[in-house]
Amino acid sequence: MTARKRVVVVGGVAGGASCAARLRRLDESAEITVLDRGPYVSFANCGLPYYVGDVIRDEGKLLVATPELFRQRFNIQVRTRHEVRRIDRAARALEVCELTSGSVYRQGYDALVLSPGAAPVRPPLPGIDLPGIFTLRTVPDSRRIREWIESRRARRAVVVGGGFIGLEMAENLVHRGLEVAVVEMAAQLMPALDPEMADYVLRRVRAHTAAVRLGDAVAAFEPDPGGELLVRTREGAALSADLVILAIGVRPETALARDAGLEIGVRGGIRVDEQMRTSDPHIWAVGDAVEVRNFVTGEQELIALAGPANRQGRIAAEVICGRDSRFRGVQGTAVCGFFGMTVAMTGATERSLRRAGRADFSAVYLHPGHHAGYYPGARPIHLKLLFRPSDGRILGAQAVGEEGVERRIDVIAMAMQQSGTVFDLEEAELCYAPQYGAAKDPVNLCGMLAANVARGDVALADWSDLPATDALLLDVREPAEFAAGTLPGAVNLPLGQLRGRLAELPRDREIWVHCGVGQRAYYANRLLAQHGFRVRNLSGGYQTYRAWYPQGAGNEHSGESHDRQSEEHRSAEQGSRR
Amino acid sequence: MTARKRVVVVGGVAGGASCAARLRRLDESAEITVLDRGPYVSFANCGLPYYVGDVIRDEGKLLVATPELFRQRFNIQVRTRHEVRRIDRAARALEVCELTSGSVYRQGYDALVLSPGAAPVRPPLPGIDLPGIFTLRTVPDSRRIREWIESRRARRAVVVGGGFIGLEMAENLVHRGLEVAVVEMAAQLMPALDPEMADYVLRRVRAHTAAVRLGDAVAAFEPDPGGELLVRTREGAALSADLVILAIGVRPETALARDAGLEIGVRGGIRVDEQMRTSDPHIWAVGDAVEVRNFVTGEQELIALAGPANRQGRIAAEVICGRDSRFRGVQGTAVCGFFGMTVAMTGATERSLRRAGRADFSAVYLHPGHHAGYYPGARPIHLKLLFRPSDGRILGAQAVGEEGVERRIDVIAMAMQQSGTVFDLEEAELCYAPQYGAAKDPVNLCGMLAANVARGDVALADWSDLPATDALLLDVREPAEFAAGTLPGAVNLPLGQLRGRLAELPRDREIWVHCGVGQRAYYANRLLAQHGFRVRNLSGGYQTYRAWYPQGAGNEHSGESHDRQSEEHRSAEQGSRR
Repeated sequence: MTARKRVVVVGGVAGGASCAARLRRLDESAEITVLDRGPYVSFANCGLPYYVGDVIRDEGKLLVATPELFRQRFNIQVRTRHEVRRIDRAARALEVCELTSGSVYRQGYDALVLSPGAAPVRPPLPGIDLPGIFTLRTVPDSRRIREWIESRRARRAVVVGGGFIGLEMAENLVHRGLEVAVVEMAAQLMPALDPEMADYVLRRVRAHTAAVRLGDAVAAFEPDPGGELLVRTREGAALSADLVILAIGVRPETALARDAGLEIGVRGGIRVDEQMRTSDPHIWAVGDAVEVRNFVTGEQELIALAGPANRQGRIAAEVICGRDSRFRGVQGTAVCGFFGMTVAMTGATERSLRRAGRADFSAVYLHPGHHAGYYPGARPIHLKLLFRPSDGRILGAQAVGEEGVERRIDVIAMAMQQSGTVFDLEEAELCYAPQYGAAKDPVNLCGMLAANVARGDVALADWSDLPATDALLLDVREPAEFAAGTLPGAVNLPLGQLRGRLAELPRDREIWVHCGVGQRAYYANRLLAQHGFRVRNLSGGYQTYRAWYPQGAGNEHSGESHDRQSEEHRSAEQGSRR
Repeated sequence: MTARKRVVVVGGVAGGASCAARLRRLDESAEITVLDRGPYVSFANCGLPYYVGDVIRDEGKLLVATPELFRQRFNIQVRTRHEVRRIDRAARALEVCELTSGSVYRQGYDALVLSPGAAPVRPPLPGIDLPGIFTLRTVPDSRRIREWIESRRARRAVVVGGGFIGLEMAENLVHRGLEVAVVEMAAQLMPALDPEMADYVLRRVRAHTAAVRLGDAVAAFEPDPGGELLVRTREGAALSADLVILAIGVRPETALARDAGLEIGVRGGIRVDEQMRTSDPHIWAVGDAVEVRNFVTGEQELIALAGPANRQGRIAAEVICGRDSRFRGVQGTAVCGFFGMTVAMTGATERSLRRAGRADFSAVYLHPGHHAGYYPGARPIHLKLLFRPSDGRILGAQAVGEEGVERRIDVIAMAMQQSGTVFDLEEAELCYAPQYGAAKDPVNLCGMLAANVARGDVALADWSDLPATDALLLDVREPAEFAAGTLPGAVNLPLGQLRGRLAELPRDREIWVHCGVGQRAYYANRLLAQHGFRVRNLSGGYQTYRAWYPQGAGNEHSGESHDRQSEEHRSAEQGSRR
């Protein structure tokens, strides 16, 4: 390395800030400059919804590091409100505008790191520029929303978009006492989940908000004589609101890179190699603006997450300092909490596997308690594990529940990073004491259920084939449970009586077995298979059925919410005893 | 397999019950019999302390499965209060005593599974048989303790043994309103932890109990004129108590196996191979009575944990049914909760590595918050990671804290099962939202700190060498922090001033750097190393110092508990911002 190498980082939030700090740790002599067009660097953007919600009350808490700290601690020059207008690749120089004064200057570099981030999508709808319609990306954005809520004494909000940010905003606005309606264009909330897993989310969000409109979108915004805004939807609804939050996704900020002729990838992000280098060998790019490879699906993806951004920043710094570091790719681990519920996921979903043209996967469902059922307070976790039955390779997991959700997804995420299989989950030795888990942890149960399939001990029925099947649907629960609601057309034969009543079952027809959450059906599957029946398992039982077919389940249930409560309770216990 | 193969399982709790149920799932035709000398099978023994503590109020909750359920659901014959007196290996038959009637009969087997468990140690001390001295293994044991507490209106208890069960019992007795003293023969509580990690435990237990006596043991029990019992210790203390709980460990129940001439291992447990087979090819053994290989240290171990017992039971069943299953060994993942604190660990400790003759390891310490510091409520986790610097292989982890402790240990446990390295922890993509974690999760931080050592970017000083070192001890915190307490003899030079004051530092002498929790010291290490100084890091900073040298730290601190509070707070924030 030559002395006084000049490194310029454009964008000083997660990836850029990590990169700059790492650069200094590796090279005391480099001249490191961070340029950001905003007023702050290194702020906690994941905290912004909670600042709006007044859960985080002190704005200063969001500022992880100040320019002064960067100077003093790292000898890094941070220039806020400096916007890079152009990259002169041939001259290795930037054209920078000092926004406060409007003056423009040139800044040379030996290595350039782009960390411009992604901007919230703001569609060109009629009325989009009316006051009271907000997106959330920066500290000033969240400050403006707070001020609007307070000064207008806002009571009603419409959140457009039912994904991570949308639901976090909905929760925070409800936390502030607002009445919230959510409008989501997809047929489900949390489009990152498979639809049947999103059903748990829908039930919870419906219970805490004024309205959830799925499969609908905003057509126009209008001033509302009775309040601030009228939100008109394509399906003809008119929702009054004192403010609107747009949370319909983000788009990578690639203008600077495009103008400089850097290669853009298939998904519209800046193209980089494993060393975070762009098509120009002197320019690196990191964070939300770049495309990265999902190491599960092999697809290029745009991932707007702080963890990967930080890692990419570190790797770019290491490569600039001559190390041979490589980014391993992303797996899409994410978590989101709202209304007492936690949703977490890692790896591929069934939808993303199909989109990638993959058919060699199976899914198991389970609903174990987050700790031993015999210890008070166990809450169910609804889990879906995707895996490759041919070799047991884990492809992805989704979980929804109230407690211990992120822990199980983290463990599965760790296994996946190391190319783990369902057999590894089955054998995992995890923390167990009654208040923390179960002797067979939910992660072990995931592994066991999937391993049963991978080993050929259990054949799965596909829940999506349920409406068209001519298989016998066999409910092996007790008669009282059967009477309280079952699959359409199912017959009842309790597990305890099965061995004595085999003669009643058909040998010329498939039998699809279910129970409440899957445990008894599994026993019945093994029993019937050994007696020569053609049997398949409806994984996750009636709990999974209601998530797949909420309408069907609703029709059968007069006292649905009560039944659900008691069954969830049961499921928590059964899970832990499996 | 021949039809009607006779399998007999001796001992129907965790391993035995799992084995029997798995056997049935694999072989409908086998004749499966479970014999247990106690009144119950398949009970939740990990829940017993919480039943004593009245956290679990319904005894029925502890009974995971009844003999009737085994019969009806699995066609398994369970005979409680049947004691096996002898194994006639040549004839493949057992001599069984029906305890209720006293009659003895022979029971033949094709395959025999021993799952006798382990019994609490009850040393032959004077007065050991006085009423009011209890051990805890079975449901009737816990019922007797409950009845004793209630009928005598017990107010004071002595718990002998400060390990997992001892501390769970202490917490549960305190929960019932009793005043508790703990007597532990070792110089620390939780002897499964390294001593400096146990210091956090000691502080917490001291704050919630009447007395903790370390390095002391019971000499004798005497009737107490003023109450029930007087506990005399070797160090001369006399503790009055209405009841005594002995929780000084368990011993594998090997009498039956020994009498039958089965091989016993180096640690006194029944010797088995990877397929859980004993030295007799028709006899398997599982659970607390067997010795298993720790796959981290390579040592044989006695592990009394439900998770491994269940897995061993499954594997024995599979092998009996002709499958080629193998037990992967144990890694010693465990968790324990008391007084609002969680202690969890996996893999080797420094002590167990030394005992196994290993020297090729390093340890890093950290004290991150359990979630992002900018979100309210972050609580510190005190972490120690052991790894092999030559290749980064993870060897073990210990963690103490209030929230999120078991989650981080589970993730590291999963990585270890797959031979993971600190580089894998560094790159782990884990759940992050402000209330759940940090963009750099504590697991990532563990990996980063250790990877810095493995890559040679940071050299560690050994905390145990502190008293004898002639290195310059450099505290890079701010003067106010330094003034509130530092290492004996340390000099202060705040990180922000370091670059400008390099001339003040010696080039002929090692410099050992510390700060509060390790972050600033790390920056200082990189800075000084690049400027040619011989520098080492005191990992985990002043927080770790106080755990290593509690006396020393105490002397310097007049207002220790206040300072600790504020520093723990800081540490939580800094951890998340690293």
